[in-house]
Amino acid sequence: MLLIKGGTVVTSERSFSADILCTTDGKIAAVRKDIEPPIGSEIVDAHGLLVMPGGIDPHTHMEMPFMGTTSSDDFYTGTAAGLAGGTTSIIDFVIPEVGQSLFGAWREWRRKAEKSATDYGFHVAVTHWDEKVSQDMGTLVRECGVNSFKHFMAYKNALMVNDEIFLKSLHRASDLGAVCTVHAENGDVISFLQQSLLERGSTGPEAHPLSRPDTIEGEAAQRAIALAAISHTPLYIVHVSTRQAALAIAEARLRGQPVYGEVLPQHLIFDESVYQSPDWLSAARYVMSPPFRDQSHQEALWGGLSSGQLQTTATDHCCFCAKQKEVGLNDFTKIPNGVPGIEDRMSILWHYGVNQKKITQEQFVALTSTNTARIFNLHTRKGIIGEGADADLVLWDPASTRTISAKTHHQNVDYNIYEGITVTGVAKKTISRGKIVWDDGVLRAERGAGQYIERASFKA
Amino acid sequence: MLLIKGGTVVTSERSFSADILCTTDGKIAAVRKDIEPPIGSEIVDAHGLLVMPGGIDPHTHMEMPFMGTTSSDDFYTGTAAGLAGGTTSIIDFVIPEVGQSLFGAWREWRRKAEKSATDYGFHVAVTHWDEKVSQDMGTLVRECGVNSFKHFMAYKNALMVNDEIFLKSLHRASDLGAVCTVHAENGDVISFLQQSLLERGSTGPEAHPLSRPDTIEGEAAQRAIALAAISHTPLYIVHVSTRQAALAIAEARLRGQPVYGEVLPQHLIFDESVYQSPDWLSAARYVMSPPFRDQSHQEALWGGLSSGQLQTTATDHCCFCAKQKEVGLNDFTKIPNGVPGIEDRMSILWHYGVNQKKITQEQFVALTSTNTARIFNLHTRKGIIGEGADADLVLWDPASTRTISAKTHHQNVDYNIYEGITVTGVAKKTISRGKIVWDDGVLRAERGAGQYIERASFKA
Amino acid sequence: MLLIKGGTVVTSERSFSADILCTTDGKIAAVRKDIEPPIGSEIVDAHGLLVMPGGIDPHTHMEMPFMGTTSSDDFYTGTAAGLAGGTTSIIDFVIPEVGQSLFGAWREWRRKAEKSATDYGFHVAVTHWDEKVSQDMGTLVRECGVNSFKHFMAYKNALMVNDEIFLKSLHRASDLGAVCTVHAENGDVISFLQQSLLERGSTGPEAHPLSRPDTIEGEAAQRAIALAAISHTPLYIVHVSTRQAALAIAEARLRGQPVYGEVLPQHLIFDESVYQSPDWLSAARYVMSPPFRDQSHQEALWGGLSSGQLQTTATDHCCFCAKQKEVGLNDFTKIPNGVPGIEDRMSILWHYGVNQKKITQEQFVALTSTNTARIFNLHTRKGIIGEGADADLVLWDPASTRTISAKTHHQNVDYNIYEGITVTGVAKKTISRGKIVWDDGVLRAERGAGQYIERASFKA
Amino acid sequence: MLLIKGGTVVTSERSFSADILCTTDGKIAAVRKDIEPPIGSEIVDAHGLLVMPGGIDPHTHMEMPFMGTTSSDDFYTGTAAGLAGGTTSIIDFVIPEVGQSLFGAWREWRRKAEKSATDYGFHVAVTHWDEKVSQDMGTLVRECGVNSFKHFMAYKNALMVNDEIFLKSLHRASDLGAVCTVHAENGDVISFLQQSLLERGSTGPEAHPLSRPDTIEGEAAQRAIALAAISHTPLYIVHVSTRQAALAIAEARLRGQPVYGEVLPQHLIFDESVYQSPDWLSAARYVMSPPFRDQSHQEALWGGLSSGQLQTTATDHCCFCAKQKEVGLNDFTKIPNGVPGIEDRMSILWHYGVNQKKITQEQFVALTSTNTARIFNLHTRKGIIGEGADADLVLWDPASTRTISAKTHHQNVDYNIYEGITVTGVAKKTISRGKIVWDDGVLRAERGAGQYIERASFKA
Ligand SMILES: [Zn+2]
Ligand SMILES: [Zn+2]
Ligand SMILES: [Zn+2]
Ligand SMILES: [Zn+2]
Ligand SMILES: [Zn+2]
Ligand SMILES: [Zn+2]
Ligand SMILES: [Zn+2]
Ligand SMILES: [Zn+2]
Repeated sequence: MLLIKGGTVVTSERSFSADILCTTDGKIAAVRKDIEPPIGSEIVDAHGLLVMPGGIDPHTHMEMPFMGTTSSDDFYTGTAAGLAGGTTSIIDFVIPEVGQSLFGAWREWRRKAEKSATDYGFHVAVTHWDEKVSQDMGTLVRECGVNSFKHFMAYKNALMVNDEIFLKSLHRASDLGAVCTVHAENGDVISFLQQSLLERGSTGPEAHPLSRPDTIEGEAAQRAIALAAISHTPLYIVHVSTRQAALAIAEARLRGQPVYGEVLPQHLIFDESVYQSPDWLSAARYVMSPPFRDQSHQEALWGGLSSGQLQTTATDHCCFCAKQKEVGLNDFTKIPNGVPGIEDRMSILWHYGVNQKKITQEQFVALTSTNTARIFNLHTRKGIIGEGADADLVLWDPASTRTISAKTHHQNVDYNIYEGITVTGVAKKTISRGKIVWDDGVLRAERGAGQYIERASFKA
Repeated sequence: MLLIKGGTVVTSERSFSADILCTTDGKIAAVRKDIEPPIGSEIVDAHGLLVMPGGIDPHTHMEMPFMGTTSSDDFYTGTAAGLAGGTTSIIDFVIPEVGQSLFGAWREWRRKAEKSATDYGFHVAVTHWDEKVSQDMGTLVRECGVNSFKHFMAYKNALMVNDEIFLKSLHRASDLGAVCTVHAENGDVISFLQQSLLERGSTGPEAHPLSRPDTIEGEAAQRAIALAAISHTPLYIVHVSTRQAALAIAEARLRGQPVYGEVLPQHLIFDESVYQSPDWLSAARYVMSPPFRDQSHQEALWGGLSSGQLQTTATDHCCFCAKQKEVGLNDFTKIPNGVPGIEDRMSILWHYGVNQKKITQEQFVALTSTNTARIFNLHTRKGIIGEGADADLVLWDPASTRTISAKTHHQNVDYNIYEGITVTGVAKKTISRGKIVWDDGVLRAERGAGQYIERASFKA
Repeated sequence: MLLIKGGTVVTSERSFSADILCTTDGKIAAVRKDIEPPIGSEIVDAHGLLVMPGGIDPHTHMEMPFMGTTSSDDFYTGTAAGLAGGTTSIIDFVIPEVGQSLFGAWREWRRKAEKSATDYGFHVAVTHWDEKVSQDMGTLVRECGVNSFKHFMAYKNALMVNDEIFLKSLHRASDLGAVCTVHAENGDVISFLQQSLLERGSTGPEAHPLSRPDTIEGEAAQRAIALAAISHTPLYIVHVSTRQAALAIAEARLRGQPVYGEVLPQHLIFDESVYQSPDWLSAARYVMSPPFRDQSHQEALWGGLSSGQLQTTATDHCCFCAKQKEVGLNDFTKIPNGVPGIEDRMSILWHYGVNQKKITQEQFVALTSTNTARIFNLHTRKGIIGEGADADLVLWDPASTRTISAKTHHQNVDYNIYEGITVTGVAKKTISRGKIVWDDGVLRAERGAGQYIERASFKA
Repeated sequence: MLLIKGGTVVTSERSFSADILCTTDGKIAAVRKDIEPPIGSEIVDAHGLLVMPGGIDPHTHMEMPFMGTTSSDDFYTGTAAGLAGGTTSIIDFVIPEVGQSLFGAWREWRRKAEKSATDYGFHVAVTHWDEKVSQDMGTLVRECGVNSFKHFMAYKNALMVNDEIFLKSLHRASDLGAVCTVHAENGDVISFLQQSLLERGSTGPEAHPLSRPDTIEGEAAQRAIALAAISHTPLYIVHVSTRQAALAIAEARLRGQPVYGEVLPQHLIFDESVYQSPDWLSAARYVMSPPFRDQSHQEALWGGLSSGQLQTTATDHCCFCAKQKEVGLNDFTKIPNGVPGIEDRMSILWHYGVNQKKITQEQFVALTSTNTARIFNLHTRKGIIGEGADADLVLWDPASTRTISAKTHHQNVDYNIYEGITVTGVAKKTISRGKIVWDDGVLRAERGAGQYIERASFKA
């Protein structure tokens, strides 16, 4: 057993002094002051530290086949890096090829994920539509612990679905008690702009943001919201990066519609200037979608987070090394889209958010863990600190600093978008299922220790 | 020559006392006080009357093949009815079948329209995309006097184009100096809802508005605006019927984007209750798209017209007799969409707008004629009263009343949606190209008297 | 000691099974499963019940001198009635006469409140400005446990302050680490409209809503928000009753501004038709400010509550009996403004909110208790269920029903605005400071048992 | 008689080729092609020139006593300078001292204005309220040709009125058929901020914009709109300089409310950096209210003008020489507020608007003349080009350039805010009441030639 003594427990609701006792089977047994150490228990001194629910990253892409290559962090290396940053669970995406069975793809991803060092769950993407898809959605919800489906309004001729398919899926999800998630950018427009830019000779990374203007993220977000309203389905918009989308979400919520928005820390601090680097690789490494935008959007993202209109933070962690990025040397549309980030999400959000007094430490917990657990129906086990909950915890040192670098990070990728940034606020120890797996610089992630998280239907 | 004496001339700018002299070749020769009647001229006494530019209806569908039938007013009967109501020009729609040449369709429509009693022009619909379409757009603008193209975001599997085609057309139009018009409703959603309603046994006209909710007109309007912003193309949204679309237009205009909105008088006064009639035909006769909506939208439409955010009024005149409507007896999706209205547009707008002090008489002129002429590049000839302009005029009696009825109207259709409404404000005389063609109850419309209106490119 | 066994604990964060042990000095000693009853402890069976933090009503007016009379519930009867409905704390208002010392008024109110049956705190109103006011604000925050001040933008020539005074107070509060609360209606406009209505002979209660249009609540809310932004002061807008104010709050929050909104349950269910009653007294009994409004506002209030943009519910409990209301028989502006409600707030919100699935039970706790505790810096002791917190609890039976009536209520007033409404969701037992004070119909409120709640500065 | 031959007439409605004949008593006698020169007439060659209605500047302050001094352009020098720039009429402000009779002040201003070189009218300010004010408003409207009143929401303890007085005046104006104009900034907030800044030692011009933040112009605009809605009075907001105010106006108009907005060209091109000049006088010369703001507001102002949501342009012409500005050397609140501009308004708007394709030449006419004439009920005589209208014209050379400088301008003030700017688009000749008073560089303004313009009530 593990006894965490002397820390300040921080939940999404409040902060208080308490010890925490974790059982050997990875549950929280008690949360109260002055717990007597059971015989044989390991004691962790948490004086001066904040004890928070381990982070949940609801948007990662480990070893994902994409754009002709495969993202370089696999489920083991990626989740291990997460632990080094305080993240103890992920929800990754099962992405069937068009025509592939959803259920079959889910089984494939389950197999890939067995090596995970943290607990993991899956959103399953709907990329086409027929009776089989509808049936598989039912199977996945009823039998496989999946309660969320993903839709792409972008990536035309690849993952994108049209509005009719999206609406059918929303409708089916509503019947099943599942949530729909969506990548909201207008793929038709992007397709057109990419062609236009290439035709005009704009082939470098600097063309990437031009092919994906802010307005068409806002457009797609509004469209997704309108569709979800028709089918009465809870909607979760991934990687909100524009004020237009943030505003659309806020307005819908004020009408009583269940809409949620996710923010990536990188969108909070970078802008489109990253694509202007004279060095091709330096710029290409920031190629992800939605792209980094002009700084004027950041106020709405922070405002959304602090006001509760945007509920979660994620990373869209999707790593590609230099060799992989270079596939797009002569054509920016071929640069694999994605950046690493799972290891640094919590420090970045703490540093720029809590330290800057944009959010409180309780909001930090809500934004990194509790809200995600609630939206995806994990909240009886994850995102909270209470008797019976999973013993996934991070012991946070708000006073420590670290300088982020690819030289020292644990992600299996040859760069870090936050290279050189020194943050104050560091995961001192990370506890996964009751075990210390990150101990002040020493990573003890265990291959395959992670368990699959079954998430029940909201109608269950 | 025709000399109109003693009236009050009303333009979009101002009202003033003046006589108007029209030449035998249909032009205005002079506008000033106390014109001496030239020898042999016919004198029209306009004391107590308002002399306004003849109405332009920029949205009609004469003898249009649609949904398996053909609209019952042909170019002669329809334009003649327009004259009886004060309308002296129309802009109709050339709607190629998918795959048909735009140019070929335009020639076909030109032939059909030769019988028109009023001047006429054409918007040409883009319903598919390939190199030939792009070339034909060029031909139509450069050689055929077409400067506007139409796009359907609704009518899936028929006229609807996806966003990529729409954007290609917008882009091409921008290069050519043409305007794009759009029917803004989300056809994917409608398709889904129609199927759902039919499956649930909702087969009557009462299902029609349920299949086309207000939110997805707003959605489509915002999408169209976002696309037009990308291609820098002037955008004209036909039949705006929702507050959401009106607001989207206003916001875009406040950002400096050239976006225009058209309102149909029927949307200003009817609501969805028209579909609740226990008599199938009574309800089916109101089936048009967008449907009539709850009254809360009307404030925004009036506000848009009075504030200048919505610029034009049209009718979407598209007549189907009982026999035609009955094709949809067992399936509301088969009811031919369309209602008559060209004859009554001006009286309805005057009665509910000017008489209710929602708009001024100068705004009435702007909304029925001048703004349309400006947006579609007719304004050196139409929509104004000045030397050299076409002598298309209506002598309006603001004090007369008439009761609208299918029994007395001139439209070739067996009902009138305004049946029984008594309006104050009546077209006393209508003058087309310098000839009196509607004379206090006597219709002297001449088959084939109308001329094709060439509208130049804005880049010409 | 009191041991609550077998219930479902509901907090703002989550619901879980646990027993709760309360100490004799009124604190929560433990929250966990299967607590062994200490010797001599009283055991409360909570099977089938929800155990929630006791309600906090942050807006009451007990025995308040107002409009020439005094509200009929005193601190004992009013708080006792609160206990019968599950409310275990109030924050009342100290309202100095213009010119009176804030500190002196606070002492006076402290004396009046000594008879309270529940814990109580005070907001102190700033109704004029001079150096003494500024000093007293400092004293109250530093020495008297006050961290919130109240401002009236209405009640001209009585309590109203102009914008300069309001801004000075906001500025001073900001320095002191206090929150500012505000009644947001434009008192100048109301004064004008009241005079106009009276001059035109509109003297009855039906004139009351006409004298306080929705637009000028929206106006005042926006103004208050603009002022608070300048002084960087947290702003709490009491009794938000319009969509305009709700929207203004949401927009400010999306800009990152700390603005909060309070909703009264009565505004969620009544509309202006209550003032149309032919019986004068029936209408006069609903006279409060802001008045009941047309139903179209209710969607925004519910949306605000469910989306987190409006954070609290209160009652503005302020009772006047028939005799008192009758002072305004010939002049609606003399009708004492106020309605009772402390006893029914929680049942009404549960019945119309949770039962209608507009909010979850966790949101119910947030909206009746936790959010208020956080905003007014009580959240380490109130609004939560945890070791060391005050043992203020309500055992809620979500399946029981009761019919509200003045015949059975405990409020010291001769009517109930909810008369005859049958709600599902009832406070079965209420525990204040560890004692059962409401026991399934038996009220054991103790005069003077309530304690004054010191609320620290946010800068403390 | 004067015959203008060969020009292109531009009105707010359209552009067309025509000659214009002006009578010796200053009226337009004819507008048509190929007018035969009457015997003895003077012929002006307008080939290549645009002939437009002379500008109307609805917001000037000639020889105004203000802040302890008097603006340096008197009615003669100021209006003469206007003629040099194409402006042929002004509407100045009668500003009674608090307590002074409105009618008495109007007579005083009439006397001062007798020396005007152009026609002139007056708005009369309401700066206090009593029965006499109400009576004088009646007298002014019925007998003195005044149909607009001015209100200051700023300048506390000087010109500012509170909301109750403002509403009383709005109500009275509504009864009289007059328009209300308003300077919309929150004077209470400004007063507070000025004191705070001075106390903190910010005494220079750089403090001026800090004392008048954009948010409190938006606030005041919304408040004014809310008040005007209650009294159903047309509202004209002077010098709109923020996106918030522009948006508030657009929203009100979309609800059908008659609200108008005025823009000063200087707000379209300058930003707050003008106050950062190290040279005190250089900065002080830009001190006016509302101040210049960050550039992000300019898009909304241009969008408002191009979309028709902001209707007029004015100058707020109010000149103070170096000596006068220096009164505020040690206290920015004492710097006389005001900048010159009447001579350059039209060139600036043309250069930055028409040349940049933000507005059309017809919109230019609307924005400099026609809309003002319509809003203030001058439009049968001014702002148009038609038989019987006043022969106030400007012959505009769109191809000429001039470089603006205090060295060459005709304004009686020792600087020009546009110093050194070279504009394309120049008033070649200006015709006032049928006489050429500005002739390609030669100013023939005549002292006292201007006439008082009676403006009728909208209920007349
Ligand atoms: Zn994505
Ligand atoms: Zn992703
Ligand atoms: Zn259509
Ligand atoms: Zn149509
Ligand atoms: Zn109040
Ligand atoms: Zn109150
Ligand atoms: Zn001003
Ligand atoms: Zn001024």
